Amino acid sequence: MTQAVRHDSMRARNLEVVLGAVSRGGPLTRAALAEVTGLTKSTVSKLVGDLVDAGLLAETGPARAGERGRPGVAVVLSGARVASLGLEINVDYLAVRVLDLTGGVRFAARRERDNRGSRPKKVLSELQALATEALTETHRLGLEVAGAVLAVSGPVGDGVLFSAPNLGWQDVRAADLLRLPIPVELDNEANLAALGELWFGDGERDFFYVSGEIGIGAGLVVNGSLFSGARGLAGELGHVVVAPEGPPCRCGGSGCLETFAGQEAVLAAGNAPSVPALLAALERGDETALQACAAAGRALGVALTSAVNLLDLDRIVLGGIFTQLYPWLSGPVSEVLAARLGGLRGAPPVLSASRLGGDAATLGAAGRVVHRVLADPAPFLARAQEA
Amino acid sequence: MTQAVRHDSMRARNLEVVLGAVSRGGPLTRAALAEVTGLTKSTVSKLVGDLVDAGLLAETGPARAGERGRPGVAVVLSGARVASLGLEINVDYLAVRVLDLTGGVRFAARRERDNRGSRPKKVLSELQALATEALTETHRLGLEVAGAVLAVSGPVGDGVLFSAPNLGWQDVRAADLLRLPIPVELDNEANLAALGELWFGDGERDFFYVSGEIGIGAGLVVNGSLFSGARGLAGELGHVVVAPEGPPCRCGGSGCLETFAGQEAVLAAGNAPSVPALLAALERGDETALQACAAAGRALGVALTSAVNLLDLDRIVLGGIFTQLYPWLSGPVSEVLAARLGGLRGAPPVLSASRLGGDAATLGAAGRVVHRVLADPAPFLARAQEA
Repeated sequence: MTQAVRHDSMRARNLEVVLGAVSRGGPLTRAALAEVTGLTKSTVSKLVGDLVDAGLLAETGPARAGERGRPGVAVVLSGARVASLGLEINVDYLAVRVLDLTGGVRFAARRERDNRGSRPKKVLSELQALATEALTETHRLGLEVAGAVLAVSGPVGDGVLFSAPNLGWQDVRAADLLRLPIPVELDNEANLAALGELWFGDGERDFFYVSGEIGIGAGLVVNGSLFSGARGLAGELGHVVVAPEGPPCRCGGSGCLETFAGQEAVLAAGNAPSVPALLAALERGDETALQACAAAGRALGVALTSAVNLLDLDRIVLGGIFTQLYPWLSGPVSEVLAARLGGLRGAPPVLSASRLGGDAATLGAAGRVVHRVLADPAPFLARAQEA
Repeated sequence: MTQAVRHDSMRARNLEVVLGAVSRGGPLTRAALAEVTGLTKSTVSKLVGDLVDAGLLAETGPARAGERGRPGVAVVLSGARVASLGLEINVDYLAVRVLDLTGGVRFAARRERDNRGSRPKKVLSELQALATEALTETHRLGLEVAGAVLAVSGPVGDGVLFSAPNLGWQDVRAADLLRLPIPVELDNEANLAALGELWFGDGERDFFYVSGEIGIGAGLVVNGSLFSGARGLAGELGHVVVAPEGPPCRCGGSGCLETFAGQEAVLAAGNAPSVPALLAALERGDETALQACAAAGRALGVALTSAVNLLDLDRIVLGGIFTQLYPWLSGPVSEVLAARLGGLRGAPPVLSASRLGGDAATLGAAGRVVHRVLADPAPFLARAQEA
């Protein structure tokens, strides 16, 4: 290892240490940062200067023009330079969201449209138009987009969306179909929504986020980190077996949770043409709709029992259409969890509805880029210096 | 932070770096260690000297008396000083095992006895006699025992065994009942057996280890680490729901895997008084025994399908009585996995029987102490200097 390489990697680590300390505990003065990080004051001053120049940190407090760098001045994360783009393809809409480094929303747009059975090229070209609009507005605000993440409803590995039943897609390299001037990464919607809950939700660091759509996915957060399994395919709650002799499932099995509690199963059982129609029927106390929801809730309770036993869950957050159906689902789900888990675990897990609703996935997608810059700012600084 | 504290923590980290490099890539000369770790040669020499003095490393190769410390001499992990004690309470036996720092077995003993319904005090006092025998022999070999881990069949948290149905125990602080001159830690048998598989098995770093006993536990290893959940209670495969309307389970639920594939369920269905009797019946082609195993295998296949979907498993290792029953179980299990997972994952996970058999838990228990010393040798060195 050469001295230069060693110096660079130490500098990268120290940049991360300083930026992380401000991110978690800012505003902090340079002196406080030296105390917290164990670095010398002169090293801290140099690093803070570079981070301020790159637009990742900003000085705050009593600073005035010409006073920059005064030792008593505190620094905070800056929302003025770095931005990230979150994208989502849902069955009913396309969505984009731009976050700055402080997590502030700088742009958000959503186009309602039925993506069912649409060709990937067509959907991606509409998303590209929306993303381009977001990028134009972001540049106008003086922000620089560090990267983008695209959320899709289905298992993803190595940049490939293996299957998205709600869209009728199979083996689509969705991010590669976007022509954008920034790198775009593909990931599963339930995983990203779980990260959205982690970073922008109720502040819990251990929970299981369930995304109810036509498919039912889930994201497990343990001690503030997403668990996604060996190949990134964990959380396929929709194909947990509820009753082995149950209805046939599109996966080739039978009696999977999806055949009882997936959107199509619930609409069919509730005799409703759409989710809004089902909600209206539930509101007016329609017996068929109520029975459909109760049956879906009991099936969800059985599948979640298996998940709790395997994954050791104390907290379950219901998202997607389950958020809207929560008032009618939560009772049956809780009853099953209490009956099946009370003895083993003392208390069943706490159940709640996601408060982020449909925003969770784009928040998690954009948030992932923000967290990546915070965890390793050196590449961003290097690019900023080149530009 | 004072200079002295900072120096100590850097020294601790460097000791770990050097010991880890030798553990993964030894034998290594001091010069090679400096190259690999990026530390200066004089720092490496000092650290290696301390590790050799403490008995964690030994010099090898062309070294002769009086030549110690010659730069060209390589060092390896030493099996001559540090040892660890693995203990197990099983329904049919008590077991102890002593490993040295290289993973070599230095002592192993097993007492067959029926622990069903025995009082904790009585069982632990017998285990204490066995452990004392192991410690005496270990001291005679010149080894120093760094710690002990006790494996029990049931969920464990904060030093408490919540329930061990095969023993009839509830809320027992099992490790505290042992009077030994070393700290004893309590953990779940399936978790420890999974670690035994990881460290002493086929060299795989991603797998799901299933321990079939009266209860059915499991341990998930992802990228070489055990996943044990937020409270350490993950892997309760026995209470994954196979059929919601199935037989009542001791957990308060019904149709859990255990009611179909737990040892008592299989023996009852196979009309056999014991596992050896069941194996004999299977060997001679007894139809009742064969049907019992096939039914258990199908139920295990359904529960494992749910586990694969939630945890993203490519490899499943069957341990406990499932190892002995493997020739009759594996067909039905594989058929269910192929039918239910082939479509979703391309290929179903690979199924195999544990090759460690009943030794997995004590290997994992003793191995955990060895890995702890390797991951952080400083406390052991400090104790060695005090003594």
